[in-house]
Amino acid sequence: MNSFTPIENLGRNQLIDKIKQEERFKRDEVIYGIGDDAAVIRNSDFESSLISSETFVESVDFDLTIAPLHHLGYKLSMAAVSDIVAMNGLPVGITVNLALPNKVSVEMVEQFYKGVHYAGEVGQFELIGGDITATRGPLVISITAYGKADSEQITYRSGAKPDDAICVTGDLGGAIAGLRVLLREKEGFDQTEAETTQPELDKYEYVVKRQLLPNIRFDFLQLLDLQRILPSSMIDISQGLIHDLQQILTSSGVGAHIYQAAIPIATETRQVADEMETDVDRYALYGGEDFELLFTISKEDMEQLYNHFDDFSVIGKITEEKQLLIQGADGAEINIDFSAESN
Amino acid sequence: MNSFTPIENLGRNQLIDKIKQEERFKRDEVIYGIGDDAAVIRNSDFESSLISSETFVESVDFDLTIAPLHHLGYKLSMAAVSDIVAMNGLPVGITVNLALPNKVSVEMVEQFYKGVHYAGEVGQFELIGGDITATRGPLVISITAYGKADSEQITYRSGAKPDDAICVTGDLGGAIAGLRVLLREKEGFDQTEAETTQPELDKYEYVVKRQLLPNIRFDFLQLLDLQRILPSSMIDISQGLIHDLQQILTSSGVGAHIYQAAIPIATETRQVADEMETDVDRYALYGGEDFELLFTISKEDMEQLYNHFDDFSVIGKITEEKQLLIQGADGAEINIDFSAESN
Repeated sequence: MNSFTPIENLGRNQLIDKIKQEERFKRDEVIYGIGDDAAVIRNSDFESSLISSETFVESVDFDLTIAPLHHLGYKLSMAAVSDIVAMNGLPVGITVNLALPNKVSVEMVEQFYKGVHYAGEVGQFELIGGDITATRGPLVISITAYGKADSEQITYRSGAKPDDAICVTGDLGGAIAGLRVLLREKEGFDQTEAETTQPELDKYEYVVKRQLLPNIRFDFLQLLDLQRILPSSMIDISQGLIHDLQQILTSSGVGAHIYQAAIPIATETRQVADEMETDVDRYALYGGEDFELLFTISKEDMEQLYNHFDDFSVIGKITEEKQLLIQGADGAEINIDFSAESN
Repeated sequence: MNSFTPIENLGRNQLIDKIKQEERFKRDEVIYGIGDDAAVIRNSDFESSLISSETFVESVDFDLTIAPLHHLGYKLSMAAVSDIVAMNGLPVGITVNLALPNKVSVEMVEQFYKGVHYAGEVGQFELIGGDITATRGPLVISITAYGKADSEQITYRSGAKPDDAICVTGDLGGAIAGLRVLLREKEGFDQTEAETTQPELDKYEYVVKRQLLPNIRFDFLQLLDLQRILPSSMIDISQGLIHDLQQILTSSGVGAHIYQAAIPIATETRQVADEMETDVDRYALYGGEDFELLFTISKEDMEQLYNHFDDFSVIGKITEEKQLLIQGADGAEINIDFSAESN
């Protein structure tokens, strides 16, 4: 009766599956509930609302000692609306809930919201609500993003089809490289606290910016709209390429063949990996928070896309066989089992 | 430059005002952002979306030792949709985010969601999303409620007019009375842990239910719709009558005259107050979480309402003068200053 199963024994995805199964009531206007980047709710014959909510916990999801609060406000707001963008929708507003430990001052909260408002200006959405409560634990920030989409243009995770090209916008691994640089600086700073050292971050500007001020691909959505191109599936890369690709494969019931050499990586990301003596492919395959878009698209649409947009790369193709095969630059293939819990 | 003002020195409402002032971007479809029970976003000429988000922190907003987890899931879900109901809207779905300490097991999470799903069945809304993350601190639960309303029928806090009747549905103070009973039982249980004691809660069934399983007034909304009656302002009583009335008065720029003897209090609530040697009026004026509706209404509409509904009480009237006057049963009046921070 009083059994105690730790969460990690079951895994987050299985837990969410269990929760979904318990559902007792369905509403007609809920087109899609749990299981994609955002829930989809019908407003009219042509328009839907999109809602996505995420919680960020200090020391788990962010580190106050490396992210200034206005950057954190910007980044978490953008991370939240990224889920709307991943559905091919545009954000309208966000609600921000803070559970504040008493080490956080009014000035810090104001800095945080400066970042939130700046994100809203860049992404053209409003802060529409939220609340502030106290906690004796770590700072917890919960953000809900609300947006709208043309119902016919929504891109789910579940639409990938065999032979579709697998593509990513921009480049990958930069955010994790930036995190590594910031953590190294912090360590160095801790060691030389007495001296007045200025962090040497200028030469790492690109990757540090990828970590602190992510770029959400609103431009790509505008292009899709202009060119009337619709990816067969899409997700934002928040957890890492392999993790997020697995979400598409599982939802679509397909597999993938990825060419590792085709994964776009910035020069500075490579430099950081070299300095850290890490394989840069690990950054690109498993590093999260790049917030680039991972999408699948028919060959015809891909060719049309090439004529109008050059900031994306084809990194593989969807296969009928339900396996995730990664082909290295040397031709060697590794097979990643994605039927098991991946998180 | 590096000044540190503790949050309590400024107060939550002032902080939220500061945050609002910083806003840099406005969207046309956002009819109302921060400052009411829910944000209002235009979907079409006649329909709007409503969004409200709230965070609940263990040991601050709830006590795991007195609320079984399925009750907690039920209660917090209902508390969240209560904000939609307070705008005269109907909930469609909620997102639930959990930040889980490792003392929480899979079984406990399942219990919690049983309560969430049960609330959805009662309130006819769906669990549409959310996430689960880990924390080293207390359990933090963040719930966003999404609903819809006829744009013309939305009841804001700001519409109260002089001479409007001030009314509440149901009765007040029951939830806080239930909490007092549960806390007393817990104390007694702690003292006699060795014996097998069964909590003696049967005789307190009404107030305990008010605390653990709040009743959201969907029935009142149906009636308003059927009778085509529209309150001039409305709010749910979550913080306590005086606190929530002050929100209406501040938003509407008016004052109120309250007749203490007219405030509806259940017999069992009075009995508990007697046992606890507390003035029951304190429960009714300041106790939160009753989730009844506090509304203002023109005299004509109030009379029409009386013909069709008897579960509400007129407790006072709106005045032009911006003061909150409470007239005791003995005729003595107290004047509550609500221009200052009230929380």
